[in-house]
Amino acid sequence: MSHNSFGHLFRVTTWGESHGKALGCVVDGCPPGLALDEAFVQDFLDKRKPGTSRFVTQRKEPDQVKILSGVFEDDRTAQQYGGQVTTGTPISMMIENVDQRSKDYSEIRDRYRPGHADYAYDQKYGVRDYRGGGRSSARETAARVAAGAVARRVIGDGITIRGAVVQIGPHAIDRDAWDWAETGNNPFWCPDAKAAKQWEDFLDETRKAGSSTGAIVEIHASGVPAGWGAPIYGKLDGELATAMMSINAAKGVEIGAGFAAAAFSGEQNADEMRMGNDGVRFLSNNNGGVAGGISTGQDVVVRVAIKPTSSILSVTQSVTRDGDEVDVRTKGRHDPCVGIRAVPVAEAMMACVLADAKLRHRGQMG
Amino acid sequence: MSHNSFGHLFRVTTWGESHGKALGCVVDGCPPGLALDEAFVQDFLDKRKPGTSRFVTQRKEPDQVKILSGVFEDDRTAQQYGGQVTTGTPISMMIENVDQRSKDYSEIRDRYRPGHADYAYDQKYGVRDYRGGGRSSARETAARVAAGAVARRVIGDGITIRGAVVQIGPHAIDRDAWDWAETGNNPFWCPDAKAAKQWEDFLDETRKAGSSTGAIVEIHASGVPAGWGAPIYGKLDGELATAMMSINAAKGVEIGAGFAAAAFSGEQNADEMRMGNDGVRFLSNNNGGVAGGISTGQDVVVRVAIKPTSSILSVTQSVTRDGDEVDVRTKGRHDPCVGIRAVPVAEAMMACVLADAKLRHRGQMG
Amino acid sequence: MSHNSFGHLFRVTTWGESHGKALGCVVDGCPPGLALDEAFVQDFLDKRKPGTSRFVTQRKEPDQVKILSGVFEDDRTAQQYGGQVTTGTPISMMIENVDQRSKDYSEIRDRYRPGHADYAYDQKYGVRDYRGGGRSSARETAARVAAGAVARRVIGDGITIRGAVVQIGPHAIDRDAWDWAETGNNPFWCPDAKAAKQWEDFLDETRKAGSSTGAIVEIHASGVPAGWGAPIYGKLDGELATAMMSINAAKGVEIGAGFAAAAFSGEQNADEMRMGNDGVRFLSNNNGGVAGGISTGQDVVVRVAIKPTSSILSVTQSVTRDGDEVDVRTKGRHDPCVGIRAVPVAEAMMACVLADAKLRHRGQMG
Amino acid sequence: MSHNSFGHLFRVTTWGESHGKALGCVVDGCPPGLALDEAFVQDFLDKRKPGTSRFVTQRKEPDQVKILSGVFEDDRTAQQYGGQVTTGTPISMMIENVDQRSKDYSEIRDRYRPGHADYAYDQKYGVRDYRGGGRSSARETAARVAAGAVARRVIGDGITIRGAVVQIGPHAIDRDAWDWAETGNNPFWCPDAKAAKQWEDFLDETRKAGSSTGAIVEIHASGVPAGWGAPIYGKLDGELATAMMSINAAKGVEIGAGFAAAAFSGEQNADEMRMGNDGVRFLSNNNGGVAGGISTGQDVVVRVAIKPTSSILSVTQSVTRDGDEVDVRTKGRHDPCVGIRAVPVAEAMMACVLADAKLRHRGQMG
Repeated sequence: MSHNSFGHLFRVTTWGESHGKALGCVVDGCPPGLALDEAFVQDFLDKRKPGTSRFVTQRKEPDQVKILSGVFEDDRTAQQYGGQVTTGTPISMMIENVDQRSKDYSEIRDRYRPGHADYAYDQKYGVRDYRGGGRSSARETAARVAAGAVARRVIGDGITIRGAVVQIGPHAIDRDAWDWAETGNNPFWCPDAKAAKQWEDFLDETRKAGSSTGAIVEIHASGVPAGWGAPIYGKLDGELATAMMSINAAKGVEIGAGFAAAAFSGEQNADEMRMGNDGVRFLSNNNGGVAGGISTGQDVVVRVAIKPTSSILSVTQSVTRDGDEVDVRTKGRHDPCVGIRAVPVAEAMMACVLADAKLRHRGQMG
Repeated sequence: MSHNSFGHLFRVTTWGESHGKALGCVVDGCPPGLALDEAFVQDFLDKRKPGTSRFVTQRKEPDQVKILSGVFEDDRTAQQYGGQVTTGTPISMMIENVDQRSKDYSEIRDRYRPGHADYAYDQKYGVRDYRGGGRSSARETAARVAAGAVARRVIGDGITIRGAVVQIGPHAIDRDAWDWAETGNNPFWCPDAKAAKQWEDFLDETRKAGSSTGAIVEIHASGVPAGWGAPIYGKLDGELATAMMSINAAKGVEIGAGFAAAAFSGEQNADEMRMGNDGVRFLSNNNGGVAGGISTGQDVVVRVAIKPTSSILSVTQSVTRDGDEVDVRTKGRHDPCVGIRAVPVAEAMMACVLADAKLRHRGQMG
Repeated sequence: MSHNSFGHLFRVTTWGESHGKALGCVVDGCPPGLALDEAFVQDFLDKRKPGTSRFVTQRKEPDQVKILSGVFEDDRTAQQYGGQVTTGTPISMMIENVDQRSKDYSEIRDRYRPGHADYAYDQKYGVRDYRGGGRSSARETAARVAAGAVARRVIGDGITIRGAVVQIGPHAIDRDAWDWAETGNNPFWCPDAKAAKQWEDFLDETRKAGSSTGAIVEIHASGVPAGWGAPIYGKLDGELATAMMSINAAKGVEIGAGFAAAAFSGEQNADEMRMGNDGVRFLSNNNGGVAGGISTGQDVVVRVAIKPTSSILSVTQSVTRDGDEVDVRTKGRHDPCVGIRAVPVAEAMMACVLADAKLRHRGQMG
Repeated sequence: MSHNSFGHLFRVTTWGESHGKALGCVVDGCPPGLALDEAFVQDFLDKRKPGTSRFVTQRKEPDQVKILSGVFEDDRTAQQYGGQVTTGTPISMMIENVDQRSKDYSEIRDRYRPGHADYAYDQKYGVRDYRGGGRSSARETAARVAAGAVARRVIGDGITIRGAVVQIGPHAIDRDAWDWAETGNNPFWCPDAKAAKQWEDFLDETRKAGSSTGAIVEIHASGVPAGWGAPIYGKLDGELATAMMSINAAKGVEIGAGFAAAAFSGEQNADEMRMGNDGVRFLSNNNGGVAGGISTGQDVVVRVAIKPTSSILSVTQSVTRDGDEVDVRTKGRHDPCVGIRAVPVAEAMMACVLADAKLRHRGQMG
């Protein structure tokens, strides 16, 4: 029910604002006996960290995580589990904000930046922490990434989650050139080396123009066993839809063939089945690994549309809190394409959804 | 938490299988004092009813709703509210199944129909009611439509929800030709008269070939006040995403510009604001009426991709429960394009999401 | 969140009013493959049924249950499971109301009966179905008993749930005379034959005087494994507390020694442990089988205080909806001691709490 | 669903162990625009703080709260609201642990202390932070008190919550001597000066003997409007029951007359009504301010039985993790009667339940 929690049995609650003292999350329902220390979580946070290339925000945040509860280590855990482990009690993690520039916020205090949540928040709450966007800032996603690290312990090493950017602005990758190894060779998580080159030029232009661009992110989860998820309102794809749509700037989610399936015939869309060496083998994956809301054992494949960063240098027409018409230009340290840093976030959301699905599945099924 | 419930304060629980005795729903949390009788609900069900044209399934189901609880009428309610009203207690509604043909189900009992939930259900549950798809049948959506009727009473007449089909197979409408009035003039909820003509031919072909086709459904809600919804995991668009993805055969959801926003620049995407006569006026609606998860007062616009009906006459390759390879052909009374009947269902889901958002909003904000 | 649902993974939603067409429940989250038919559920309902002795209401309700969904039977289930089984989809059960006397309700329509929910409901909802108490009637508990039958399948035969009345009015049983077998030999679920005799006279007097009396109900669950439940807000005793307090007329709940523990010293209260043949053996059970919110393997023991039936023949002072002072006398077919029929209801709530705890436990722990 | 969260619309999630780095809570769903700073919260924490008299634990914890998110202050809030206010986003509060004595925990690591959660936790989780009881320590209640402070802002100054200890060991107060003002004059929250004197002697003896004793706590909430709460599983008394039972060492909860009502006749129990100057006036309050789960406008009255502190100096029989029989004596800084410090905790839980009830009520009712 609560607006700042996600998941059911594996449940994540996040808190914090962009320019507050800190941000963090509480992970509830985690099974005990899973290896977990700050270094493990930090690795995931470092993937999302700002300032790693010229294509992302230059805000300097070390994003150093502290685990405040829910883990324990002594001689016995060292011997039995190899070190510090989860205890089954809530895991509280905190990341202190460091680089909150003490600038004058009077401009965004009173002027609604188009595309941002400024106007909507003011209409709802009447009062808000406008510094850096406050709660609506994508800094909140650091907490998701920390929670996602825990989720990976829950789902285990048998499941591999990988993400890529498959389109930036109007420039889509060539899917035939897809190479997961390439995603580590460029600052865009791009699986197509040629497209990465093109994007570099495109984003340099965009950045220099003080503009921004949208993107499409794609996440694959391999090794998900058949049977996770549930029918109707507990569908695995329904959970993924809300998980991905909850990411800042997300405007669309699709599973498997997604919107393309609208143009298909039943024959084209059918994921035919044959017997393989390890049981059923599907001849295609238009369903994206989910049928009737339940995993089929194929890769779970989801794509998320990310709109362009709303903070741009160009003048846009807007209004003030007091109802005056104004022109707005947003200076500052912004990502020209928030889609890039959305990759580790969307991977984390996939991990959280799967961790929850695993626990719910074994709750009902034993 | 439960897999068969939807919503938080306005909460709908559905039950029933395609060939069981009945199906229905329990609507919990409805405010008291709202006019509600069977005739009002029936009007919505009649829009979704099978057998209304040759383009939808020929199963003969009157889909007659009975309200079993949660309403009351006496002299005083007649005088004060004009008739039967909700009492604030759970509203139980039931629709009896009538046309369950007593045929031989041995074929789908053992053979997994590609694209259907058969295999996934068996992997999860081990036992299932396979008659007509059981719980995974789109008959479940009748219960959603009934709940959606109640939801409309909750949101009130100030909010208008309208739906249309905007693409069938590869044939999209001409958005410049959009006329809401046209949606009542053809059996496809098509807002473009010319496209409707084209679809008629396309679907006749599809139907005769024993094939099927996908579609895209678009729902608009006008009159939603600014401020509904909440940040982060309670986003209005996040709730819409899971609501729409929970509809049978849905494979994608987008809000406002959706996936198209990926190709936009920040300048193209910005919904600029000016002052109008009634407060803020937006110059575009790429955000689809939602910013930061909160409604802006613009139309809430969502699109849903519906895959082709999985039941087709063509032979597809599959396997049996026992691991034998088989060929499957699905005879029976199927919709060649389930996207058409998805319109009243998606409208109902929009109504349920908004009713819940309204109650949650006033819970927190007073 | 919803007011008419109980439980998390094993989740029960009830609906219906005393004099409406029917009442019922939807049980969501039940594991598949559990034997379940109407006869099994009916046995539990028959224990709660009105009209079984002169000490309970004479309303004639057969309380015949219909299972409308969530179960399936064919040749294969017959062979594999021995008959009809749950499928893991929501189980909808309905009980039609039969004996709704068409009397004049104008009196309770406008006069608030002291002790009843009349005034509170009117203050909250403004409109209500006052016939027989509407939603606040104990007829709702029939739905709980039906759900409890399903819950027993979930927890399995290794757990035994038994209930007794241990006090009626000022007359408590002699705990040293406790004999579970006696509870079937008298109409009071009394485990002490001598007390049962005394109660018979006491209740005959009470009934003839048109008065009523309170009672204390005690429920034991044996065979609950150690480890169910969870700390803090998911405590097994916390769940039991709300479950039991939700029963009509309940005013108190205690676990193990309960209120008596307030007078104990730490030495008296300590449940000391020794090693027995099957592991740990406790030397006392002041904790009532729950420590830190988690089951210890001992019997789970809970007691519920039930206030006297509020409907009495004696004149009581009250007011009307319009604010006039009036005298109220309640004629009709009432239980002189609702505590008696609360036994099967409280047993059902124990079963539901344990079923939910079992599923939640294995969700987190595997 | 999550084990460490409480409430629905006003939702509190707590985290932290007795000897971890810190403990805290996240309060979600709080309305915006409520004055809230650390000093306000600290006042409530100081009432619960250890070390305030010789009758409570001598552990030295300043229990200094930090508010990490969800509040904001600038010139405008100062002018409009008078200072720092809530923003409607999650309020994260943290209390650092200071006095974690670095002692040898090997004894409680392997020996199960009777009455404690040690054995149950080990049976469930297999691994636990045993230092000071870890998560099962009453230190967790500091987080509740912090959340309760926020809850009081939500319910507003029109509602007064007061708590008292009404029994310590076998020594109950004289209810005719009740004087709320007295609760501030002794270290026991005792409303009866004479009883307080008696308790002083009794507790000195208990403490010197290394023993402990139980107690009964009573909480009153005045000014609660009629209509809060909901029927069936959302009953206000049901929510109070689970809230109070979730407090460490609680073994019983009763509302109004509670267990005494079992001995009443219907005539004795009826809360008769007359018209007073401000509407309905009740002639008694056996229902404890709640009828049918809904508040009546009378004082909400709840009593909680607290068992004796399980940590005692006397030798008790127990077993080890490895199944060896041992004798256990618990040295350390323990409260001889945890019931005393339970008063501010139970007050906080009452505040949280009422805050949630208020938001839920206006969600459904407007």
